[in-house]
Amino acid sequence: MIKQIAVLPGDGIGPEVTEEAVRLLEEVGKQFGHTFQFQFADIGGCALDKTGTPLPEETLQICRESDAILLGAVGGPKWDHGPGEKRPEAGLLKLRKALQLYANLRPVIVFPALVNASTLKPEVLEGVNLMIIRELTGGLYFGQPRGRKETDEGLAVVDTLYYTEAEIERVLRKAFEIARLRKKHLVSVDKANVLDSSRLWRETADRIGKEYPDVKLEHMLVDNAAMQLIRRPGQFDTVVTENMFGDILSDEAAMLSGSLGMLPSASLSDSGPGLYEPVHGSAPDIAGQNLANPLATFLSVAMMLKYSFNLEQEAQAIEQAIHKVLEDGYRTRDLAQEGERYLTTTEMGEKVRAYL
Amino acid sequence: MIKQIAVLPGDGIGPEVTEEAVRLLEEVGKQFGHTFQFQFADIGGCALDKTGTPLPEETLQICRESDAILLGAVGGPKWDHGPGEKRPEAGLLKLRKALQLYANLRPVIVFPALVNASTLKPEVLEGVNLMIIRELTGGLYFGQPRGRKETDEGLAVVDTLYYTEAEIERVLRKAFEIARLRKKHLVSVDKANVLDSSRLWRETADRIGKEYPDVKLEHMLVDNAAMQLIRRPGQFDTVVTENMFGDILSDEAAMLSGSLGMLPSASLSDSGPGLYEPVHGSAPDIAGQNLANPLATFLSVAMMLKYSFNLEQEAQAIEQAIHKVLEDGYRTRDLAQEGERYLTTTEMGEKVRAYL
Ligand SMILES: CC(C)[C@H](C(=O)O)[C@@H](O)C(=O)O
Ligand SMILES: CC(C)[C@H](C(=O)O)[C@@H](O)C(=O)O
Repeated sequence: MIKQIAVLPGDGIGPEVTEEAVRLLEEVGKQFGHTFQFQFADIGGCALDKTGTPLPEETLQICRESDAILLGAVGGPKWDHGPGEKRPEAGLLKLRKALQLYANLRPVIVFPALVNASTLKPEVLEGVNLMIIRELTGGLYFGQPRGRKETDEGLAVVDTLYYTEAEIERVLRKAFEIARLRKKHLVSVDKANVLDSSRLWRETADRIGKEYPDVKLEHMLVDNAAMQLIRRPGQFDTVVTENMFGDILSDEAAMLSGSLGMLPSASLSDSGPGLYEPVHGSAPDIAGQNLANPLATFLSVAMMLKYSFNLEQEAQAIEQAIHKVLEDGYRTRDLAQEGERYLTTTEMGEKVRAYL
Repeated sequence: MIKQIAVLPGDGIGPEVTEEAVRLLEEVGKQFGHTFQFQFADIGGCALDKTGTPLPEETLQICRESDAILLGAVGGPKWDHGPGEKRPEAGLLKLRKALQLYANLRPVIVFPALVNASTLKPEVLEGVNLMIIRELTGGLYFGQPRGRKETDEGLAVVDTLYYTEAEIERVLRKAFEIARLRKKHLVSVDKANVLDSSRLWRETADRIGKEYPDVKLEHMLVDNAAMQLIRRPGQFDTVVTENMFGDILSDEAAMLSGSLGMLPSASLSDSGPGLYEPVHGSAPDIAGQNLANPLATFLSVAMMLKYSFNLEQEAQAIEQAIHKVLEDGYRTRDLAQEGERYLTTTEMGEKVRAYL
């Protein structure tokens, strides 16, 4: 199999973790007889510095022509004070929107070897394995109007939570499809007791749910969901929610696995390339020091192999290598107990390749 | 001291917990020589059933004429399918707005006796004592326009996140004042990398912060805050955020104390009566069974004594009685370990009065 992969290292620790991911993909290619071709392009702060825009047209073009996209991370204090469209994050948002990557899949898996890294009690984490599906191209992130204006009451500011029914429908349908391949239990999270958008969301979920009678649909208010994720995470299988709620809940849920350094994500559209990125950000404080944990990016690569290339076996090979590396006690700094030895980014990359 | 208190029992377990709270206030009055006069009024689902509106004009009138308001809870499945304005929650939102109760104070305290009730590891909870200040009368909860409309792309729906600068300013100022009386560390939570409203929020916090040079101001993105509350809750002292973020984060933070049944809240305006209510909802599943935990309501009463009546000593007497009751091993059902004996709502009420 020959595949074109757009690699967007981005800012902070992005270049370090994507570099290791590329090496891992090359090793997978060698062992399984595939050819992965890489095209590198700029996004985020580094693109802003070079071109004045966080998503150059050329990058978008490279992404469109690829079979899948691997992204590191964007953002950093250096660019934190520009106006909205001159921020690294705007590049990522524009890319998500341009490619209609509306379904953001964020699996939260508890690695038995890492149970102690979480602040939750081990017995609460037993068997936790959930998939959060976050709507990624609508809601407060993109709604118009937005911005400041003068009013009778002085300066005011507005953001708009906007969804078409069709946008709600397609992500819910995707969630039902995914739930069907898992434990057939879907929790749809909203704030239907307050928001009009949530009431349409809930109605739509009920309606689409009729097409999936084998999937058990449950509604949960977002405040309660924030609580239940900590109280009894084992009750969740598949979770679906709108963009902003998904941003908050998926980062919260990340704490179940002990470190944000372990969490991959896939952003999918109905056609065209998927985008794969670790959930952790650019971590400017440790950038350039060979300290970052590349495992979330490796797991994102596994998702790419599975969702974009249908290479289930290759994906599992990566996941199993990671499991074994952890079981044998290897840790990056974020996972290490105080005083424990840990591997650098490149050492961890090497280790996983050796275990493949 | 003579004080008029409006009591709005509401729905579900609301009547049970407010009844015990009234008894507790009477006991405080007796011991400390105060007279508390109670005026009962309807709100939420029970008001809808009786009058067709979740906040009857008469209730609002009674609240306006009182020195403080004690509320139980609103809502339940019976009323979950009406349109927005015919829901129990609409009554609560209207009351908050009408009385301009813009500052919602939600303390999260870990009771040493209850450390085991939390799903977090005891060492993570050590010394946790934080105060979340949630903006309560703006943002997505109240912004216009809202609702459904037909568009070129079919049915669509909108909610509006709207704030005037003045609204942002007053709640931030309140938060700085409160932080000043605590550990002088204020974390302002926003999503400034995406939302225009958050960018104004952050700028305003920086500007107001100059008036409080003794308070250390820190900004945190909401997704990161959702994570940090679980990862290292001890890092927080005072937290301030907008309405919807506050709804989610405060319920999440509630898990630190092991049970939502322990968390009080105060909603304050610049003048006029404050509103005091437990953070837990109406819990329809256990309503009418004498199983509810009244302690969150008792702690709300303590906040009333402190914030509305300036009765610091009386407030402390309640808090200390609760601490002692817990230390002596008394539990309500939500706090009991499996198989452990527990007290009913009325028994817990009696116990706290006896310890006062
Ligand atoms: C960087 C930021 C814009 C982004 C988001 O909020 O979507 C990030 O937090 C994420 O979750 O992918
Ligand atoms: C009942 C509901 C409208 C309310 C809110 O969202 O504000 C509740 O969740 C709360 O936190 O007080």
